[in-house]
Amino acid sequence: MQSGDFRRARSPQAKQAREEAILSAARELATQRGIREITLTDIAVAVGMHKSAMLRYFETREEIFLRLTADGWREWSAALRADLDARHHADAEIVASVIGATLATRGQFCDLLAQAPMNLERNVSPDAVRRFKYVTHAELDAIVESVRRLLPALSVENGVDLIATSTALAGAFWQIATPGPEILELYRDDPRLGHALVDVESRLRRILAALITGLLAD
Amino acid sequence: MQSGDFRRARSPQAKQAREEAILSAARELATQRGIREITLTDIAVAVGMHKSAMLRYFETREEIFLRLTADGWREWSAALRADLDARHHADAEIVASVIGATLATRGQFCDLLAQAPMNLERNVSPDAVRRFKYVTHAELDAIVESVRRLLPALSVENGVDLIATSTALAGAFWQIATPGPEILELYRDDPRLGHALVDVESRLRRILAALITGLLAD
Repeated sequence: MQSGDFRRARSPQAKQAREEAILSAARELATQRGIREITLTDIAVAVGMHKSAMLRYFETREEIFLRLTADGWREWSAALRADLDARHHADAEIVASVIGATLATRGQFCDLLAQAPMNLERNVSPDAVRRFKYVTHAELDAIVESVRRLLPALSVENGVDLIATSTALAGAFWQIATPGPEILELYRDDPRLGHALVDVESRLRRILAALITGLLAD
Repeated sequence: MQSGDFRRARSPQAKQAREEAILSAARELATQRGIREITLTDIAVAVGMHKSAMLRYFETREEIFLRLTADGWREWSAALRADLDARHHADAEIVASVIGATLATRGQFCDLLAQAPMNLERNVSPDAVRRFKYVTHAELDAIVESVRRLLPALSVENGVDLIATSTALAGAFWQIATPGPEILELYRDDPRLGHALVDVESRLRRILAALITGLLAD
């Protein structure tokens, strides 16, 4: 796409199309090279806009990735709820497996979950954080409702704790399980570092199953 | 302290004293302004060394903070084990309270726990990561042993999952509970953002108590 295509957007539709183009370029770059490597300049080059023009849509790289995190919540929440809502019965093991599997197969979202409070929410305006939080809270409430239909003995507070734990652990374990290539080699070669190789899905499933069992015993 | 005090260290003792001075300056600066704000130059200025001389001791700011994370593991582990080892009996609630309280009162360590896999382990040599991992694994094993003395029904694998969950959640919840001042104001003023204000200690205690209960039911 040429820079000339991105003269100032005249209509709300044109503005939205440009926002989508920027978000989609950022998502693609992050898929190829990882979120931490991608600068605002990289995104501007990929989308064919001048950096100064892109700043009319997003103030910082963090604002772009915070929007992708909100999109990630909507997409994960829809997939998780579709799976749960299609079931007539489920126990702790099954709910834990579904949460664990839907998170572990979304590596970029796991990365964003850890980056959001540490980096992304700190370099954007309060309004951008507010819009982000409205999305995550609405999805959190919807997920808790779907879980409680299957496990009615779980209180709302326990449901919120369960999902907060799931997303916090998915973010943290993904960071541990995805080191740079040199460190990965170190873990494979040094038998004393066996603990360090974490399988995100099976660890999440195990821990969340025990957590749900304990919350239901409450 | 003057720069002149830091001519090249001649003995291992002198070298170690300089390392300690650098680590202690970094710890103090991070306590005042937060880890994310502190650069290598800030630390060099505080310790009264030229930056080029400091690079003989630590290659990057991340190496300094990774050393502080290892020190944090030793200090937390000793405090946690001293508390557990002094008890004759303990149930899930008590073990969860002790883990939650000893983590939540160590804010800088919680911050480092989240920063380590995301940022610190990615900007240091494999050897620095190896030394760091040897410390964390030794402390992890020692903590699991102390927990299992009180809760013998807990398997070693479950004990490792418990401590990995505790440290991952402490890191993640601390990041969420400690936003910048503008965002904290936003959370306080907007009733729709009530969820966002997290009390790290009570949330950790609640979740870990349920997790231990579920692991023991395994």
